[in-house]
Amino acid sequence: MNDPQLAPTDIAAYMADVGQRARQASRVIASAASALKDRALIATAAAIRRDRTRLQAANEQDLAAAQQHGLDAAFVDRLRLTDAVIESMAAGLEQIVALPDPIGEITDLRYRPTGIQVGRMRVPLGVIGIIYESRPNVTIDAAGLCIKSGNATILRGGSEAIHSNRALALLIREGLAAAGLPQDAVQVVETTDRQAVGELIGSPQYVDVIVPRGGKSLIERVSRDAKVPVIKHLDGICHVFIDDTADVDMAVRVADNAKTQRYSPCNTMETLLVARGIAPRVLPRLGRLYADKRVELRADPASRALFEQAGIASVPATDEDWVTEYLAPILSIKIVDSLDEAIAHINTFGSHHTDSIITNDHAHAMRFLREVDSASVMVNASTRFADGFEFGLGAEIGISTDKLHARGPVGLDGLTSLKFVVLGTGQIRT
Amino acid sequence: MNDPQLAPTDIAAYMADVGQRARQASRVIASAASALKDRALIATAAAIRRDRTRLQAANEQDLAAAQQHGLDAAFVDRLRLTDAVIESMAAGLEQIVALPDPIGEITDLRYRPTGIQVGRMRVPLGVIGIIYESRPNVTIDAAGLCIKSGNATILRGGSEAIHSNRALALLIREGLAAAGLPQDAVQVVETTDRQAVGELIGSPQYVDVIVPRGGKSLIERVSRDAKVPVIKHLDGICHVFIDDTADVDMAVRVADNAKTQRYSPCNTMETLLVARGIAPRVLPRLGRLYADKRVELRADPASRALFEQAGIASVPATDEDWVTEYLAPILSIKIVDSLDEAIAHINTFGSHHTDSIITNDHAHAMRFLREVDSASVMVNASTRFADGFEFGLGAEIGISTDKLHARGPVGLDGLTSLKFVVLGTGQIRT
Repeated sequence: MNDPQLAPTDIAAYMADVGQRARQASRVIASAASALKDRALIATAAAIRRDRTRLQAANEQDLAAAQQHGLDAAFVDRLRLTDAVIESMAAGLEQIVALPDPIGEITDLRYRPTGIQVGRMRVPLGVIGIIYESRPNVTIDAAGLCIKSGNATILRGGSEAIHSNRALALLIREGLAAAGLPQDAVQVVETTDRQAVGELIGSPQYVDVIVPRGGKSLIERVSRDAKVPVIKHLDGICHVFIDDTADVDMAVRVADNAKTQRYSPCNTMETLLVARGIAPRVLPRLGRLYADKRVELRADPASRALFEQAGIASVPATDEDWVTEYLAPILSIKIVDSLDEAIAHINTFGSHHTDSIITNDHAHAMRFLREVDSASVMVNASTRFADGFEFGLGAEIGISTDKLHARGPVGLDGLTSLKFVVLGTGQIRT
Repeated sequence: MNDPQLAPTDIAAYMADVGQRARQASRVIASAASALKDRALIATAAAIRRDRTRLQAANEQDLAAAQQHGLDAAFVDRLRLTDAVIESMAAGLEQIVALPDPIGEITDLRYRPTGIQVGRMRVPLGVIGIIYESRPNVTIDAAGLCIKSGNATILRGGSEAIHSNRALALLIREGLAAAGLPQDAVQVVETTDRQAVGELIGSPQYVDVIVPRGGKSLIERVSRDAKVPVIKHLDGICHVFIDDTADVDMAVRVADNAKTQRYSPCNTMETLLVARGIAPRVLPRLGRLYADKRVELRADPASRALFEQAGIASVPATDEDWVTEYLAPILSIKIVDSLDEAIAHINTFGSHHTDSIITNDHAHAMRFLREVDSASVMVNASTRFADGFEFGLGAEIGISTDKLHARGPVGLDGLTSLKFVVLGTGQIRT
């Protein structure tokens, strides 16, 4: 099926075949030795470096089609397999090799009064379906994390990257074969037909979890229609709250970084909350910084008054602003009377993604950590740190704002579950 | 709403009100001090003992109605609040008090190269909906676990137990009030209208997870229609595999216990697998034991031959038997050629609940633990141990055979999730 000329026509039958192969391969890779999984990753990394030119030739087909379809320059950029992107894919696999194998780890093994020992063993989820958009490097990142965590994976990339993804899939399969692991442990869906997504997310018998990566509309559609559990986040409406006792320099530095280091990531700040007492000392300074970077300020009346005194332009914030993820040089700003008001605002209007307090008050820091109901809560740090690599997970397959299972950046552990193990010496229950 | 005379008529509006109250109470109880949560449980236990007579009077109304509706004796038995059941409810709450508070625990807090510290904090899920059938003691068990884990809960018991459940709910609310906690942290649904279940499982804005407890049809219905995540198990098709190297006495003792200690629990063995080499030494002995206890044996041809030689009655097993949860004195039996065949049988026909190997072969034990894809996997122990209390969880709110989030018996931890916490000193991302 890896020849682009042989794209399947009966999508339901094709996806059932892919699903069955994945399920079968998952049983083998689930108990594969760590050394074999690492060998597959190392062999794939070597093949990627070896075949750079061939990968770029396949990528050219996608780039030509994208340009022909008039897709914009930013889109074409994300699609392009430059030398640097190819090297980073290979290096990323080697980073995953360096992580400890999570599978088979037994924790908390304790004797019970009956004489049995009870503990928990970390095991793969089984088959992971990844649905993503244009960037072909996701193919390698996701496959690498799934192989290391003993899962089979079905990759459904964007139609715009189909030639690149197919070429990458061949190299992953080569790596799996070199380690003696089943090639079907990683499959790239060989059709751009949208029905394939419907089959994938509707097949709990073949797929244990779906990870959609891409824009909000993709994630909403997948979540709404899926019959398989979905690991996802919809919005990243992240807050920084500058408390009265904050160090002003630190507050300015962090609030600047959280908004302006990059505008498009989901962990970029969208709303700045400032305690009333400190506002006259931080808002004019911050306002000037943002104005210099052409960040539009949508402010509540109290903040606007401070901006006006300092000669900084702002527009009135509406109720809509508190629930909007701009992903752009726009920031909403509100002055609050207390920590309680800040926490209530975040829990009510935020998206439970990432929120940070800047404070020197220990009790406030501890209350913020405990009471803000978000996947990542921070004290005196930029929201931009909410990322699998920065958190030390090695890499991430996505970020979850759901409460069940994985929450926050999802690394290898999020692709596993814990089962109970019981070691006895013939005990029976009486 | 606690007067039975005031049962609501507009179910949608009533359930929305219950949901909003629960959501609001969940924010308070989520960060309540351990001592207050424990005080609420202790006060409830005292109130239960104090009001034994009043509880039994309420229970009498349910018992009279059940008898009037011609419900069978076993059903009426489960419904009855005897002195012993009432004492066990109070004692159960005191056992929950003795468990450590899981909430707020921070683990794995480590420095990253950027200077930030990253760890994980255990937090409540929010609002738990419990849907259960006749046994009113679930009202107390579930409320106790939810209070301790900082969750609000909405309890929807069976209509046959409505008077008992209302009486118990009053005592829980009394306990919450005594500790200064919001009474709405535990609400019993005040209507037996089935629409209430539909509203409960269809309201992700108010409810974070549903735990259905009861028969398979209840759980299937809830799972199919829920828009809220469900923690559940559908079937308990549990296996014992007697390996060639097993100690024969141990094998007989465990296989007897796993089937006959009680027939109705979900962790009772339904299929016995026996390695071909040891079968002539264990099956006649086991067959006689089972026959004495009037357990019907549904066996494959090889097992039947051994039973016949020993003069033990059996019937032929059909393909249907391998996928049937009898919950009755019936056992399916199959002789297998290898550990591989045993594992494949369990993973193919089992329900991923609880499976045990009896063996003296260390490598076989380790492979069984790793490769059997079930919530609880055991070596040399009876499947009947798969239970929150036996596992040391203190109590259980249910058992999950799903792979995401909780797997196996679900105790306090299963009612929590982990969020990331980041402690910085002003770090920004560069």
